[in-house]
Amino acid sequence: MAAINDTITEISQGLIDAVVSPTISADINNYFTVMSGYLVFFMQAGFAMLCAGSVRSKNAKNIILLNILDACFGCCAWYLTGFAFAYGDPVPYEQCNGLEGAELDACNAGPAILGGVSASQGFIGNRWFVMSKLPRENYWFWFFQFTFAATGATIVSGAVAERCKFEAYMLYELMIVMFVYPVVAHWMWSSSGWLSPFRTPDTKTGSYLYFAGSGAYDFAGDGAVHMVGGVASLVAAWVLGPRIGRFDAAGNPVDMPGHNAALTLLGVFLLWFGWYGFNPGSAVYWTLPGVDHASQVAIAAAVNTTIGAASGTIATLFIAMAYQYFTLGVVVWDLIIAGNGALAGLVSITGPAGFVQPWAAFIIGGIGGFVYFVASKVNLHVLKIDDPLDAIAVHAGCGIWGLLATAAFAAPGMVSDVYGARADNDEQRAYGFIMGGSGAVLGANCMAIVVIFAWTAATMTPFFLLLKKLNLFRVSPEVEAQGLDVSHHGGSAYPHELAAKGVNINGDSGFSMTPEMVDRKIEEALERLQMNGKQVSI
Amino acid sequence: MAAINDTITEISQGLIDAVVSPTISADINNYFTVMSGYLVFFMQAGFAMLCAGSVRSKNAKNIILLNILDACFGCCAWYLTGFAFAYGDPVPYEQCNGLEGAELDACNAGPAILGGVSASQGFIGNRWFVMSKLPRENYWFWFFQFTFAATGATIVSGAVAERCKFEAYMLYELMIVMFVYPVVAHWMWSSSGWLSPFRTPDTKTGSYLYFAGSGAYDFAGDGAVHMVGGVASLVAAWVLGPRIGRFDAAGNPVDMPGHNAALTLLGVFLLWFGWYGFNPGSAVYWTLPGVDHASQVAIAAAVNTTIGAASGTIATLFIAMAYQYFTLGVVVWDLIIAGNGALAGLVSITGPAGFVQPWAAFIIGGIGGFVYFVASKVNLHVLKIDDPLDAIAVHAGCGIWGLLATAAFAAPGMVSDVYGARADNDEQRAYGFIMGGSGAVLGANCMAIVVIFAWTAATMTPFFLLLKKLNLFRVSPEVEAQGLDVSHHGGSAYPHELAAKGVNINGDSGFSMTPEMVDRKIEEALERLQMNGKQVSI
Amino acid sequence: MAAINDTITEISQGLIDAVVSPTISADINNYFTVMSGYLVFFMQAGFAMLCAGSVRSKNAKNIILLNILDACFGCCAWYLTGFAFAYGDPVPYEQCNGLEGAELDACNAGPAILGGVSASQGFIGNRWFVMSKLPRENYWFWFFQFTFAATGATIVSGAVAERCKFEAYMLYELMIVMFVYPVVAHWMWSSSGWLSPFRTPDTKTGSYLYFAGSGAYDFAGDGAVHMVGGVASLVAAWVLGPRIGRFDAAGNPVDMPGHNAALTLLGVFLLWFGWYGFNPGSAVYWTLPGVDHASQVAIAAAVNTTIGAASGTIATLFIAMAYQYFTLGVVVWDLIIAGNGALAGLVSITGPAGFVQPWAAFIIGGIGGFVYFVASKVNLHVLKIDDPLDAIAVHAGCGIWGLLATAAFAAPGMVSDVYGARADNDEQRAYGFIMGGSGAVLGANCMAIVVIFAWTAATMTPFFLLLKKLNLFRVSPEVEAQGLDVSHHGGSAYPHELAAKGVNINGDSGFSMTPEMVDRKIEEALERLQMNGKQVSI
Repeated sequence: MAAINDTITEISQGLIDAVVSPTISADINNYFTVMSGYLVFFMQAGFAMLCAGSVRSKNAKNIILLNILDACFGCCAWYLTGFAFAYGDPVPYEQCNGLEGAELDACNAGPAILGGVSASQGFIGNRWFVMSKLPRENYWFWFFQFTFAATGATIVSGAVAERCKFEAYMLYELMIVMFVYPVVAHWMWSSSGWLSPFRTPDTKTGSYLYFAGSGAYDFAGDGAVHMVGGVASLVAAWVLGPRIGRFDAAGNPVDMPGHNAALTLLGVFLLWFGWYGFNPGSAVYWTLPGVDHASQVAIAAAVNTTIGAASGTIATLFIAMAYQYFTLGVVVWDLIIAGNGALAGLVSITGPAGFVQPWAAFIIGGIGGFVYFVASKVNLHVLKIDDPLDAIAVHAGCGIWGLLATAAFAAPGMVSDVYGARADNDEQRAYGFIMGGSGAVLGANCMAIVVIFAWTAATMTPFFLLLKKLNLFRVSPEVEAQGLDVSHHGGSAYPHELAAKGVNINGDSGFSMTPEMVDRKIEEALERLQMNGKQVSI
Repeated sequence: MAAINDTITEISQGLIDAVVSPTISADINNYFTVMSGYLVFFMQAGFAMLCAGSVRSKNAKNIILLNILDACFGCCAWYLTGFAFAYGDPVPYEQCNGLEGAELDACNAGPAILGGVSASQGFIGNRWFVMSKLPRENYWFWFFQFTFAATGATIVSGAVAERCKFEAYMLYELMIVMFVYPVVAHWMWSSSGWLSPFRTPDTKTGSYLYFAGSGAYDFAGDGAVHMVGGVASLVAAWVLGPRIGRFDAAGNPVDMPGHNAALTLLGVFLLWFGWYGFNPGSAVYWTLPGVDHASQVAIAAAVNTTIGAASGTIATLFIAMAYQYFTLGVVVWDLIIAGNGALAGLVSITGPAGFVQPWAAFIIGGIGGFVYFVASKVNLHVLKIDDPLDAIAVHAGCGIWGLLATAAFAAPGMVSDVYGARADNDEQRAYGFIMGGSGAVLGANCMAIVVIFAWTAATMTPFFLLLKKLNLFRVSPEVEAQGLDVSHHGGSAYPHELAAKGVNINGDSGFSMTPEMVDRKIEEALERLQMNGKQVSI
Repeated sequence: MAAINDTITEISQGLIDAVVSPTISADINNYFTVMSGYLVFFMQAGFAMLCAGSVRSKNAKNIILLNILDACFGCCAWYLTGFAFAYGDPVPYEQCNGLEGAELDACNAGPAILGGVSASQGFIGNRWFVMSKLPRENYWFWFFQFTFAATGATIVSGAVAERCKFEAYMLYELMIVMFVYPVVAHWMWSSSGWLSPFRTPDTKTGSYLYFAGSGAYDFAGDGAVHMVGGVASLVAAWVLGPRIGRFDAAGNPVDMPGHNAALTLLGVFLLWFGWYGFNPGSAVYWTLPGVDHASQVAIAAAVNTTIGAASGTIATLFIAMAYQYFTLGVVVWDLIIAGNGALAGLVSITGPAGFVQPWAAFIIGGIGGFVYFVASKVNLHVLKIDDPLDAIAVHAGCGIWGLLATAAFAAPGMVSDVYGARADNDEQRAYGFIMGGSGAVLGANCMAIVVIFAWTAATMTPFFLLLKKLNLFRVSPEVEAQGLDVSHHGGSAYPHELAAKGVNINGDSGFSMTPEMVDRKIEEALERLQMNGKQVSI
C-alpha cells in the first residue's frame, strides 16, 4: 500500500508540474511582449509624421530622415553596447564558481535577465555586447528594449528640427543609445540597478536593498525614456539656439507653424496607438502559472493609458482656450495644442500606468496637460528656447510629473501585482502617499528625477558643446533660410505640388502676380509711353 | 482497494480540473480581445484621415479635432455612464440573498457580464458607473467596448463636417456615448437585453426568452454601432442643412470634392486594418477549454471581413462606372467611391461576419456596395441631404443591410459555434432563412432595425433641434465661407504650403492672375489710352 | 496490484495526453499567424502610400486605386484558384483507399496542408477551389497566405505607374494571383512542391526527396513573393516602355521625383511595421507542445528583420552619398533612396530571416543596400527601363540576393529549429556554406532563382505583350500628359489645394503668370500699338 501511495504521489506530482509548466506561459508572455515591441516600433512612424507636419515644408525630408535613422542607428547602437550596458548584468563569480566547461558556459550565459548580480554592479552592465553569448531565448527582451531605446532617442529630433546638421544628429543618436540611455535604464529597471525595484537580496549593496526602502517606481519609462529624451532635448535646443526668425528683435517669439496639421495629427494618432505597446507591454508578462488574471496589470495599463490621453487632451484644449480667451479675448480651439495635450497625457500616465486606478488616471492626465502647457510657455517666454515640437515640455515636463504622480497615486494592491512582495522581508511594497502609503516612493522617485536630469545634462551638454565648438552642430544661415531639403537632401519634399496645378514654379523665379502687381506694371509701361510720345496721355 | 481507487479518482479529478483550467484560456481570450480593442481604437486614426481628406482644406483642422475628441470625450462618457447603462446588468436580488459582508460584496460585484439578471432589466443597465466596484478582471471588457462606443460616435463627424459648431459636437459626443448608444448595446448584446441572444433562462421575461424565438443576431455591431451612428448622422445632417453651395439655385447638387484623396484613402486602409479588430474581436474569445479550434469563429470573421470588403469595393467601383457610363457616356473609375465601397462592404459584413460562409460574404459585400450607391444617390438627389462623407449611406444603409443579410445567410453550424445551443431547451439556434432556417432571425433583426432607427431618431432629433433653436448648432455663413480653421482653430492646416514655393499668399489679396486676366487688364489700359489720345488705335 | 498499476498508468497517460494536448498550442499558433496576416495586410496601406508619394500628383488617385484593388481582386483570385493551386495538395489515393461515406469525405478533406501527397504533384495543387470543402480550421492558413499573395502582386503597381491602363492592371492582378504566384508558392512551400523543404517521405519522387538534398530555403518569400513581383515588374516596365520625358533625346534619364516625400516615407514606415507580420509570421507557429522556446524562431526573425532594415538603410544612404560625391562632388543625404534602402534591407532579410544570426543580418542588409543601388543604376542607365518606384531593383534584385544569402549564412541550429531533422534519415539538414555547411542549399536556391525568373518571365511576358498588341496596356500620350486622375478617375486628388489659398485654378486655364510673362504681354500690346499709330514709340 505504501508503495502504491508513493507511486501515485510521484506520478501526480509529475503531472502537476507538467500542468503548471511555465513553457506555454512563457511563450504567451513573449508573444505579448514582442507584439508590444512592434507597436512601440510603430511609434517611429508616429514621431516621423508628427515631426514632418510640425516643420516648414522646406525641411520635411530632413526631419523624416532623422526619424528613420533613429531606428537604424539606434539598432546598431543597441546591438553594439546599448543592451549590454543596460541589461548585461554580470553573473556573480560565486554563482558559477566550481563549474567547468559547458556547465560554466551555461551558468555564465545563465538565468540572464532576472539572475543575481554582484553588489558592485549598480551602475552599468557589462556583458552581451554585440549580442555575444546572449541566449536566443532572451531575444524577445533585446527586441522589446531596443524599441524603447529608439523611442527615447527620437524625441530630440523635434527639438533640433530645421537647423541641426544631419551629421551631428547621427553622432548624437549613437551617443544616446550606446551610452546615456542604457545607463539610466540599468539604474531603473535592471535586476542590479541601484534605483531598481527589481533588485533581489543578492543585489543588496551597502545599507539598502531598495533605495529609500522602495526603489524608484517607473512602470513604462517616464524617467528612463521620456526624461532622458526630454532633458537631452532641452540641452540640445539650448546649445543650438533658436531658428532664425523665431524671436523678433525685441526677443518676443514669432509663430512658426508647421506646414501640415493633418500629418502632425496623424502622428499623434499613430503614437497613441503605439503607446498601447509601450505602456501595457511594459508589464512584460500576460499570464503566470497559478495566478488568476495575471493580465490585469497590463490591461489596467491599457485602460489608464486611454484615460490619461483623453484627460490630457481635453484639459490642454480647455486650458489653452482659457489662456487665449483671457489674454486675447478670442475663443480658439487649437488642434496642434490638443494633439500635444494627448501626448502630454500619454507621457504623464507612462510611469504610473500599471500602478494607479482609473480615477487617478483622469487626474494624472489632466494635470499632465497643465504641466505641459505651463512648461511650454516657460520654455518659450522665459527661457527663450526654441523647441519646434514642444518636446521639452511634453517629455521632460510630463516625464517628471509622471514620476511624481506615481509616488502619489500608486495603489497598494496594484503595486503588489506588478512587483510582488518585497524580496527581503516578503512584506507589502511601499505605495503612493495619497493612497495612504509612506513617502518612500516619493523619496526614491525624486532621487530618480534628480539623477536622471543630472546624468543626461552632464553627459549631453559637453557633447553638444563640443559639436558646436567644432562647427558641426548647426547649419549656416543661408542653408537654414533655403531649407535643408533643397540644400542637403536633393530637393523639396513636394516638387510637383504646384506644377501639377499650372502654377509656374520653374527655377527660383516661380513668383506669380496679383492684380495689383499687373496694374503697376501696366502703369510703368504707360509712363514709358508718355515719356517717348507726348501725344499720349491718360 | 476501494480506498486506493477513491484516492486515484480524487487525484486524477483534481488534475483534470487543472488541465482544463480556464485560467490560461481566459488570459488568451483577454489578450485577443484587448489587442482587438487596440485595432478598433486605431480606426479613430482611420476616420480622422478619411474625414480630413474628404473636406476642403479650410476645414481640415476642425474635423481632425472632432475626431480626436471623439476618443477623448467618448472615454469620459463611457467612464461616467456609458458602460454602466450598456453592460452594468444588476445582479438579481435572489442571487445574493442571505449573503453578508465580503461574500455579499463579491456576489454583487459578481459573475458580472455573463451573470443572471432580473427579468425587468431588459432596457438598461444600472451599476458600475465610473467603474465603481467593477472588478479589475473585467477591465478588458470595459476597454474593448469603449473602443466600439467611440467608433460608433465618430461616424457623425463626417455628416456634420464643415458647418457644425465645435461646441455642439462636444455635447453631441457626450449625449451619444453616455446614453443613446449604451442603451442599444444593452438591448442587443448584454445578458439581459430584451433583443439579446445571450439571455439565459434567468432572464426570461414574460412570454419569451429570446425575442421572436431567436433574439437579434448582430455579430460585431451593424445595429448597435453602425445604425446608431448612421441614423444619428441622418438626423444631424437633416437638422443642420446643407453646406453653402452644395445645391444650386435649382436644388441640384454641386460637387464639393475633398481636398486630399491620398488622406481619404489612407483613412480607408487604416479602417480596413482596424476592422480586423472590430469583427473578429467581437468573438471575444479565441480558445475554449475542451473545444477544438474555438478560434475558428474569429478566423471566419477575419476571412469574411476581407471578402466583404473586397467584394464591396469591386461592386461599387463597377456600379458607379456603369451609372456614369449610362448617364454621361464616360468611363470613370472613381477612387473615392471605391473607397466608400470598401467601407460599405466592411459595414455590410460586420453583422454577419461570424455567421456566414465565404461565398455568402461575397454576396453580402457586393450587395452592400449596391445599397451604399443607391442610398447615397437617394440621400443627395431625393432627400437633398448634404452628407460630406456619405456616412448615412455607408453606415445606416449598409448597417440595415447587414442585419437583413445575417437573417438570410447565417449558417446553422456557425450560429452554434457563436452562441452555443439554445439556453432554454438545448436545441439548435435559429439560422438564416436562405440556409434553410426559419424566419425567426429575420423577425428579430427587423425588429432591431425598427427600434434602433426609432430610438436613435427619437432621442437625437430633439437634441439637435434644441441645439439649433439655441443657435448652438451651425456656424455663421461668414465663418463657413472663410473656413472653420482660420475662424476657430488658429489658422490653416497648411500655412506654409504655397509660401514655400514663392507663391504670393500675403494676406487676403493673395490672388494670382491668369493670362486672360492680364489680357483684359491691358485691354482696359489701351482703351483708356484711346479715349485720351485719338492718334492711337489698335 | 497489477490491476491498480494498470489503472494508474492508464489514467496518468490520459492526463499526460491532455496536458500536452496540441489544442491550446494550435490556438496560440493560429492567433500568431492570423495577427501576422493582419500586419501583412497592412502592408497594402504602406505600398499605397509609398506609391502615391512617388508619383506625380496628377496620378495619385490612379495608383492608390491600383493598390486597393490589389487587395480586392487579389482576394477574389485567391478564392477562385490561387489557394487551390498553391496549397491544395491532393490527398493521395492510397491514403483514403477503402474508406466510405463520411469517413472518405473526412479523409479527403483531411490532414490538409501538412498531409502526404502523391509523388506526381510537385508542380501544382488541385483542390479547394473557391474554398470548397476546405475545413474551417484551416481558414487561418488561407487568410495568412492570401495576404502574401496580395503583397506580391502589388509590387508591380509601382513599376507600371503613371502610364498603365487601369483595365490592364485588373487583368494582370487576376493573372498573377490566380496562377503565376500560386504555382511558385506551391513549388517552394507546399508539402509536395518539387523545391520544397517541407516534403515528407510520402512525397519522395524519383531519385530525390529534397531537391539537391536540401530543397530551397526561403523563410518568408524572397523567391515566391519578391522575385515573382520583381520579375513581373521588370517584364511589365520593359513592355510598357518609359514615361514620356523620362529619357531625353540623347537617351539620358531625366529626374521625375514623386510629388510627396512625406507620403512616400510614411509608406516605408508602414511597410517596415507590416514586415513584422511578414517575416516572423512565416514561422506559422509560436509554441509547440513539449518544446521550450519554440517561439525563438519567430523572434529571431523579428530581430533579424529589424537589423536587416537598419543596415540596409544606412548602407544605401552612405553608398548613394559616396556615389554622388565622387561623381558630382556634392554631399547629398537622399531621403527617398534611404527609404528604398530600408525596403532593400527588408527584402534581403526576408528569405534568411529565421535562419541566420544577428551579425549575419547586418551583413545581409548592408549588401542588400548595395545590390539595390547597383541594380537601380543598371536598370536605369543600362537597360533604360523606367521603373518609377525602383520595384525591380528592390524586389527582384534583393530577392535574388536574399536567396543567395540564405544559402551562405543559414546556421545549422536555426535550420533545425525551423525545419526539424531531415524527413528521410532524421539527420541534420543542410545549412549555409559560410557556416561550414555544404553547397546543397546554394544549389537548390540557385535553381529556385533560375526557375522563378524563368517561370515568371515566361508567363508574364506573353501576357503583357498580348495586352500591348490589343492596345490595352498603355494610355495615350495625351492622357499621360494630362494625368490619369483627371482623365480617368474623376478629377485631381487635390482639387482644392490652391483654391483655398486664393490661387486661381478655375477650369483648365488655371495658369497663373510670372512677372516676366506679364512683361512680355505688355511688350506685345505696345508693339501692336506701334504698328497702328506711328507717333508712339518706346
